[in-house]
Amino acid sequence: MHGVAAAKVQQAIELLREYDLPLWIVQFARETHDHHEPVGDLAVGTSVTWPAAFVVTASGESYAIVGTGDVEQVRLIGAYQQVTGYVQDIGPELLTLLRRHDPARIGVSYSEDDESADNISHGMYLMLERLLAGTELAGRLAPAERVLIALRARKVPEELRRIRGAIALTEELFGEIERLLEPGITELDVYQAVQRKIAAAGVTTAWDTRYDPVVNFGPDSRFGHAAPGEIRLERGMLAHVDLGVRQDGYCSDLQRTWYLCAEGETAPPADVRRAFQTLRSALEAGFAALRPGVPGHEVDAAARRVLEDAGYEAPPFALGHQLGQSAHDAGALLGPSWPRYGTRPTLPVEVGSVFTLELSLGTTAGAIGLEEDVIVTQDGAQYLSNPQTELTCLTR
Amino acid sequence: MHGVAAAKVQQAIELLREYDLPLWIVQFARETHDHHEPVGDLAVGTSVTWPAAFVVTASGESYAIVGTGDVEQVRLIGAYQQVTGYVQDIGPELLTLLRRHDPARIGVSYSEDDESADNISHGMYLMLERLLAGTELAGRLAPAERVLIALRARKVPEELRRIRGAIALTEELFGEIERLLEPGITELDVYQAVQRKIAAAGVTTAWDTRYDPVVNFGPDSRFGHAAPGEIRLERGMLAHVDLGVRQDGYCSDLQRTWYLCAEGETAPPADVRRAFQTLRSALEAGFAALRPGVPGHEVDAAARRVLEDAGYEAPPFALGHQLGQSAHDAGALLGPSWPRYGTRPTLPVEVGSVFTLELSLGTTAGAIGLEEDVIVTQDGAQYLSNPQTELTCLTR
Repeated sequence: MHGVAAAKVQQAIELLREYDLPLWIVQFARETHDHHEPVGDLAVGTSVTWPAAFVVTASGESYAIVGTGDVEQVRLIGAYQQVTGYVQDIGPELLTLLRRHDPARIGVSYSEDDESADNISHGMYLMLERLLAGTELAGRLAPAERVLIALRARKVPEELRRIRGAIALTEELFGEIERLLEPGITELDVYQAVQRKIAAAGVTTAWDTRYDPVVNFGPDSRFGHAAPGEIRLERGMLAHVDLGVRQDGYCSDLQRTWYLCAEGETAPPADVRRAFQTLRSALEAGFAALRPGVPGHEVDAAARRVLEDAGYEAPPFALGHQLGQSAHDAGALLGPSWPRYGTRPTLPVEVGSVFTLELSLGTTAGAIGLEEDVIVTQDGAQYLSNPQTELTCLTR
Repeated sequence: MHGVAAAKVQQAIELLREYDLPLWIVQFARETHDHHEPVGDLAVGTSVTWPAAFVVTASGESYAIVGTGDVEQVRLIGAYQQVTGYVQDIGPELLTLLRRHDPARIGVSYSEDDESADNISHGMYLMLERLLAGTELAGRLAPAERVLIALRARKVPEELRRIRGAIALTEELFGEIERLLEPGITELDVYQAVQRKIAAAGVTTAWDTRYDPVVNFGPDSRFGHAAPGEIRLERGMLAHVDLGVRQDGYCSDLQRTWYLCAEGETAPPADVRRAFQTLRSALEAGFAALRPGVPGHEVDAAARRVLEDAGYEAPPFALGHQLGQSAHDAGALLGPSWPRYGTRPTLPVEVGSVFTLELSLGTTAGAIGLEEDVIVTQDGAQYLSNPQTELTCLTR
């Protein structure tokens, strides 16, 4: 992870100017190995044990105030100019720093709407409030969610390089999965084989290991965040895999679907072919609608409309989410304006953001799921993955 | 982890009665794979993607309200009696549940003083407040920290069995480390060898892998949460290792120290022997003071006094912390009443809690660090580890 935190701290300083926030407490936390907050990986670069404050200012300074036991390793990361250690109480040191800067607003990393920008515990927030109570700074705490969302959503070149690496490895793994798809193999067999390959590659899964990959064979398989089961692949079934890896701290998230031809078949049945083609068209409609400045729900609607116009029921999830250190990264969401998604579908798409585009439909032979990863450019979007454009009919 | 969450939910129901709290929202969170909150491992048993609420009541019910995609795996864990799925918005379902129970107070998992009991993000707390605003339940949110601390601090038999297992493995590893301690080996060599053994055992480190184990050779080594370096072990140096593993979800945390005899020596130098014996006495004084009902700072003071009476400067950290799923677990702390430790040193020690007892001193040959793990019983405490009672003088 070396190097990313330092680059993101510099980017944070620029964003404070853009969003007119004089000072931001990037992370205020303790025991961050067990209480994991994504902002730590992004803009701190290490975990801490005792209460610690990481602060950047629009005037270009960056400060870390940490327990003496954590000083050495925070200095080694090199992301913060000034690293100060304390023994008994972080309060006085932090208060002195804040008073010296006397910012009109003190940004704090929390958000109701966006879990990726919600990076302070309620107890630590109360501790901050108590520290400022009775001083001239009381009442100046403000959510820094827009800055943090932009920091996550605008990838620097090193981040994009790492995401491309994770995608390339995932596509290799799909090649190996395709070779495994023979009659009689179970969902669990495929899951376990992929787990071994992931471990051998020295990477980890992009989300909860129990359902990464998700593997679905045929119409009776459980779709969603469910662990793979004992269902055996048979001829005439669809095989669907949803897989992401995290490599060098950055994630991929892709889905591929195959059809195992029945005896004498040379192509999937008509309803399966039609569903696949409709999904492809819907995904392309979303891709075409994806460009800077457009609110996420419009991109989602472009894809959803294709499915509905073709008489299908659109899936109960968003067309696309952002991808980065987390498989579900911060910022604009390409999804419908459901309360569950908060205000995220109304946020405009930004240049430099990486999104998934994913859709699925059920058929008589099982579920078809397609998912690609794309980056937003000045003019529109570019695929980072090699899109699945055909539903291969495997003959074995 | 199977089995522990279900047992802890039952224990939680009993604790709600003991602490007179009618209802507790154990966890209210989203994307808990990336936003890790320790209460999830303890009393939920799985991670979730969409906003989810896990609720227990003093009347004996337990409820999970989760996104439809998470229903299946939450049911499989079996810790919550009723598992309900939602598609668009968790709010109405959760509000209906809370109104039906109409509790005088609604416990929420947050704490200023104890990070292990601080398990809700500020954004999710605001979401809860907003949900209740304008209803008869507004203003009823209350910290459930005492319940959560007791839930973590009182180990059920299965938890104790797992902790004993982690300690046994750690003691095996110390045996293997001792065999490695030859002139010329570096701190990093030992660290890497232990990392390989941990991976081979199929377990993980108990805290941040970059400094688990901490390895210190001689007087110039960096003590604290620092990664091991290129310092080579020489005759006449102390070798100190701080190591913890997490096995079946539960941690050990132990320190051992050796001395590498110089040519012709048969025992460590006098100042090293005296420091070791004083540490031993101080640790035993802490052990003797540890019994149910005593506030943690008294136990710390008993040990600290022995060091100070002998003319040493006592270390800038607490004598002991609790041990469980986290290497720094919740509840009473055996530490001085410093602001950094909040009110935790004033909490009384409880039966069934597992503590570390740890002390260290610098000498001319390097640092001596001793750390044991103990459980509190009705009458006092029992060692779970085999205490280091001698400072071996290795001749090689």
